[in-house]
Parts: sequence; C-alpha cells; structure tokens
Amino acid sequence: MAKNTRRRVLLGASAAALGGVIARGAHAAEPAGNLPPNVPEWMKREGLPLQGQPYTLPSTFEKHVARMGRRDEVMPGAGSIQTPHQFLRGMITPAGLTFERSHAGVPEIDPAQHRLVVHGLVKRPLTLTMDDIVRFPSVSRIYFIECSGNGSREWRTPFGRSVQITHGLLSCCEWTGVLLSTVLEEAGLKEGASWVLAEGADAAAMTRSVPMEKCLEDAMLVYGQNGEMLRPQQGYPLRLFLPGFEGNMSIKWLRRLKVGNAPFMTREETSKYTDSLPDGSARQFTFMMEAKSVITFPSPDHRLKEKGFYEISGLAWSGMGTIRRVDVSVDGGRTWRESQLQEPILHRAAVRFRLPWMWDGSEAMLQSRAIDSSGFVQPTRLQLVAQRGYGSQYHYNAIQSWKLSASGELTNVHA
Amino acid sequence: MAKNTRRRVLLGASAAALGGVIARGAHAAEPAGNLPPNVPEWMKREGLPLQGQPYTLPSTFEKHVARMGRRDEVMPGAGSIQTPHQFLRGMITPAGLTFERSHAGVPEIDPAQHRLVVHGLVKRPLTLTMDDIVRFPSVSRIYFIECSGNGSREWRTPFGRSVQITHGLLSCCEWTGVLLSTVLEEAGLKEGASWVLAEGADAAAMTRSVPMEKCLEDAMLVYGQNGEMLRPQQGYPLRLFLPGFEGNMSIKWLRRLKVGNAPFMTREETSKYTDSLPDGSARQFTFMMEAKSVITFPSPDHRLKEKGFYEISGLAWSGMGTIRRVDVSVDGGRTWRESQLQEPILHRAAVRFRLPWMWDGSEAMLQSRAIDSSGFVQPTRLQLVAQRGYGSQYHYNAIQSWKLSASGELTNVHA
Repeated sequence: MAKNTRRRVLLGASAAALGGVIARGAHAAEPAGNLPPNVPEWMKREGLPLQGQPYTLPSTFEKHVARMGRRDEVMPGAGSIQTPHQFLRGMITPAGLTFERSHAGVPEIDPAQHRLVVHGLVKRPLTLTMDDIVRFPSVSRIYFIECSGNGSREWRTPFGRSVQITHGLLSCCEWTGVLLSTVLEEAGLKEGASWVLAEGADAAAMTRSVPMEKCLEDAMLVYGQNGEMLRPQQGYPLRLFLPGFEGNMSIKWLRRLKVGNAPFMTREETSKYTDSLPDGSARQFTFMMEAKSVITFPSPDHRLKEKGFYEISGLAWSGMGTIRRVDVSVDGGRTWRESQLQEPILHRAAVRFRLPWMWDGSEAMLQSRAIDSSGFVQPTRLQLVAQRGYGSQYHYNAIQSWKLSASGELTNVHA
Repeated sequence: MAKNTRRRVLLGASAAALGGVIARGAHAAEPAGNLPPNVPEWMKREGLPLQGQPYTLPSTFEKHVARMGRRDEVMPGAGSIQTPHQFLRGMITPAGLTFERSHAGVPEIDPAQHRLVVHGLVKRPLTLTMDDIVRFPSVSRIYFIECSGNGSREWRTPFGRSVQITHGLLSCCEWTGVLLSTVLEEAGLKEGASWVLAEGADAAAMTRSVPMEKCLEDAMLVYGQNGEMLRPQQGYPLRLFLPGFEGNMSIKWLRRLKVGNAPFMTREETSKYTDSLPDGSARQFTFMMEAKSVITFPSPDHRLKEKGFYEISGLAWSGMGTIRRVDVSVDGGRTWRESQLQEPILHRAAVRFRLPWMWDGSEAMLQSRAIDSSGFVQPTRLQLVAQRGYGSQYHYNAIQSWKLSASGELTNVHA
C-alpha cells in the first residue's frame, strides 16, 4: 500500500475523529498545552548508568506484558505458554515473549556438545556439530509459527478470557538458519526417500514425520531468532522449522533426522495431534495451518473509556500462502470493511491489519476475517463445526468475536 | 531474488565446497553418522519447567553476546554501548542488544506521568498522555538507526578490535508508533512553521532541531520496538524517530515538540554533532546517514580453523534510500563479486548480504561496498579523507577492511 494512500485514508477522518482524542481526554486538568509541563523528577538527576547492562530488559512498568500459561502440577515441563498479543504491536514477536509448547521441559543444552545426525536412506550419513551447521549457506525469513492447539478450547463455548488465551499460541519472528534441502543435498538422498523423521533432544524425545516435499520446499534448520541465537524455550541451539505447518512439527532441540520411505507413525501423530470427525474417522497428518486472524485491540484486557476515535488492529496469517485481505466487522458480520495491511506483507508471515473506527458508544460486535492468496476465507465457527463437528481439538481457526458493551468492556463471545 | 535462483547459486558450489565442511571437520572421532550419538544427559531428565519465566532470556551459553561500551568514570550516564554484530544474524537487532547512546543516563519514566507537549507555531497546542498517543492511527516500519559517531575512531588508524567497536552503533528494528505528520495535522501548523525542536525528558534535556520537511515525510513518534514497548534505553515510553537521520536526532524520552520558523541552534547542533573541514569551515546539520556496509562474518572475533567453504555475511544500510547492491572483495578491492541480498529489502532498513566463498588458506583482504537507490557508492577511506580531511569525527562510512591471515585470524586494517 502506498504511504500516501494510507495517510489520506486515515486523515480523511481526522478532523472529526482525532479531535475527540485530544479534546475530551481524561486530562482536562492538564496544562493548556502552550507551555511544557513541569519538569519531571527524572529530569533533575542523572539516569541509570550505561554500563552493567549487557542485555537490556523491558521497563519495570511493563511487568504485565508477560507470557502466561497453565501449570501442570504432575509434569511441570509439559504445557503451553502464551504470547500476550493484547499488549503487542507490529508484526514481530520479541523472543522473550514468543509462545512455548514443550512436552518435557526445557533442556539446557551445551551447544559444543550438541550433534545433529542425518541418517537412514542417505548416501553419506552425517554427524554435524553446531560449528558445521552455521558454516552452511544461510537464509533469514520472517515466518509465523502457531501451535495447532491455539484456540482449542473455543469449539463449544467461548473459553478464553483474553486474546492471550484464545490466540496466544502464535508468534512471528525472523528465523535464520540453513535450508534443510541444502543439508539433504549434502547427505544425498537414496531412492525411495520420501519422509523424514525429526527427533528432539528433550526428555520427551519429541518426534514427528515430515513429508520430503516439505523438506525440499522451504524447511529450515534454524539457529537464529530475531537476530540472536534461539532462546532455550525455542529449541536452542537448533530446531527444525516448517513454515506454515503446525508448530509441534518444528522439532526443537533437533538432534536427529532419519530419512525413510514412509511416515514413522510416532505417538505424536497417532495418539496425539489428530482429530476425531463426526463420522468416527480421524484426521491425521493435518500439517497445514489455514488462514486465521484476530483483533488484538480492542480486546478483553482493554476498556474503552469514552466514545470517539479508535484504531482497530490485529494480526492475520496463513500457512497456505500470503494474506491478501482482512475484513473487519463491528456488527457481528452483517457488514464488513476492508482493513489496511501493514507492509511488508510476507509469505507465511503474520500481517498487522488496522482499521480507523469511530465508536458511537453503543454495543458492538467486533470480528475480523482473513483471506489468503489461495482464496481461502477464514470460516465462521458454525461453518467450521459443520465441517469438523465437536470432536476436534486442533486447527481451530474460526472468526473470533469480541463483544463491546456500552460501558466499553470487551468479552469473548460466540456470535 | 527468487528462492530457486538463490538455491541454484549456492548449491552450484556445493559438491566441492560443502564436502569440505563435513569431511574434514575437527570431529573425525565422532560416530560415523549412521547411528545417532549417545543419548545426552539432558534427554534423561525432565527439563526446566515452563512456569515462572514470564519473559525468557538467552541461553547461559550466550553470555558473550553482550552490549559493550566505554565507561565514563565522571559521568557514568554519558556514553555509548555497542551491538555485538559479530554474533548476530539476519536483519533484526533484538531490543536487548540494540545500541545505546545516552547523554545523561537512562531515566526511569512512569508512562502514566509522561506528557508530550506540542506548542509554538501551531493553531491548537496539545498536551498528550501516552493513552492519547497510542490512540492515534499507527504504523509499523523496519528501519535501521545509526549513531553518527559509529566508526568515529577509524579516520586515522584502524582502532576497533572488533566489528562491535567499529560498527556497533547501528541497529535495525521494527518500530511502531504514530506518524509525526498525523500529530502535527492535529495541532495545525501556523504560517512560517519550518522547523521543530524536539526535547527529551532525560537530565541532559537532549534537544535537536528537525526540518519540517522531514517531520512531514516519514518522522514517527515511536513507542513500540520489535513488537513490545521500547526499552528504557531506547526512550521508553516515547521517542522521536527520524528514518535515515543520525541517531541522536531521534530524541529519546520525548517530552516536547516546539514548532518554529528557524533551527533552534541547540548545543547538540553547534558545539557537537558538527565536523571541521580542511578549509576550516564546519559541516553542520549533517542529518543524513549515507550508504555503508560491513562484513560481520568473518570478522576479528572469529577464527577460521581450516580452509574450505565459508559464507561471507554482513549488513548494508543507507539513509538515502534502499540498498540496491553490495559487492564483496577478498583481495582488498582489486576484484569484486556481487553478493546476494536477503529479502525483504526495505527502504532505510539494514539488509543482510551473503556470498559463498572457498577459502584456499592464503592471506586475504575482505571488504564490502554498498550501493543505494540514489546511486551513492560507499567510498574508500582515502576517498572519504580526500573530501572531509582528518578533522571529522562523525559520519565515517568508509569501506571496512578485515585482513585474514593464513592462520585464520582477522584484524582491522586500513587497506
């Protein structure tokens, strides 16, 4: 979108809209604005020294911007921890707030001791150190990653009290590593090579089968996240990354790739990460994360204190391609307006959408609907249930509804 | 660049090149590769629990990836702290490692108490709270920021012992905020309005004059950095951001914008941030950061242990537009090869460049040369000195040379 177009669109509503922001604020007692306010205390003394902070942290006033998840008393290393999208902006998720799904806790791996073995149907089996791996030709790409269980409690009733609960198993980062195709070319595939088993070096030995087509398309062996090395929670020092596929397949703490001629039928693709359908059959190998979106502002952790101008904002993503359009409704889907998409709009990355809106102070029902380059349109919950029934846990990607009350509070509802 | 083109280019050299990585490594005593290595200790016990880590940190094995700078015993709040580019990958600089230039330490600002005043030649003076500011229409953009003093000690002799010292006052992040033009439109400019004074809420009351043309072009009031709120060291809760301009003008902890009809001649643009020229005159208001690049791998903190395949990699950026090409030389500029640029290649953002290279084990002189969309070609040091003399401190953007010895060590030299 051209910059000038965007500015015209937004500022077209400005005289009426933004006037309200300024003139009717909660700060009527402030100075009139023609003089600077009193000199604050923090200008009267030298601030914190620069030294002694090799790695800076967020302000102490931002403690509420935190990962959050369910505690498992029996297995404290098994669970999922969500990203606080209600407080985030832009497209990038900071590494410190990236969601986490771990099956047996976070191993503390010494990268000098870590090895990746490539074996099975290959001509030249490999044992690679991290030094070897970072010497391969590298690529950096901005991709989303989403747990297939994101929103899994929303099928029957509106469960999550915030967007962190309903959609927090999604993050979007810049990932750096080597294309898996480069390493497989180095190993040399034997005839019949059609699946790859990936195994993690955690106590769960998390294991999944990946079709060769994906391995050669855009799969990566990732060691970098947003410029630095992966966080331990993200698989330090090495993870598989399968753009657009359900997150658990992007095996963390990757130690082994075995090439075979059939899927390996691990427990994570037989007893788990499958979905029962209405006819009694099971969906298996449901790799692709289909198009989805959610409004992050306003959402249930916010409260609109007065009517007037607000920018509705959220994220959209699709494993099937590139986001082409995000429509926003404030009347529960009766009417839709096309939002503005923030460039760069990247293949299999999250996209920030925004829509200027004048709230008249009455009840509203906020929804967003993503459409991707494959033509896929994000379904309503009823459309999704009609297809999948109520026996599913994974791959819930229905349109999310936030009900805005006249008092400015937002709640998760099924509309 | 199309993905397939990239793969073809890189893998063309693969049989010869990458074979060396694997076959001749320092790990000849490793298992033969057809079996996974012994199960490591960290697979035999459950890892760290997921709870209790609201904000994750890098691995303890990454302690060497740290900001670093000079200590000022008299004024510990004045100085600059550099980004460790020798250890980073991709385009994004993590917030925790973003460089810092502060003049009187880092104030700890309560965002609820912070105000931005817009006054001077405006029709409607404004006093804005942070709540007001985040209600304005927002944009997110990936931009580099560079201190004009980056490399200031390199004019006469090769000073910096690492790329962190020579080029560490550069970072590149996703910034979110409101366009300054939106706020100025809200305030309404009076006739003659042609400059804006920006003042920070630190004890230095850091103050600079900004031409109105820049304010209306792409200047932002930024509160978000890589998805979360700004770090205190980056101006929390609000900073001015002037894409492509010298970093000190992107006033941190922004508290005041005064519109005037002439530059305000603050100390930061008279006694400081100017450069003496050979004819005795001074360069003043040298806002624009011109095209520049540097090889981050290999660089002086690395050592190449053996000959064979390496990927030369680095960053290029220009305040004057978009990076169009980065050439790399391994023979001190006698011959050049065009590197591959990592997409997305964004206006006024850093770009990661890469070049596959077979090192034959002999001495080499590594250089990179950026060319931007304005046609500007990064100068050699002698070209720069011919124009600017030796009286300059700021805006050093000469081609950097790393000398690679036959023993694989790298040093900063003037070639």
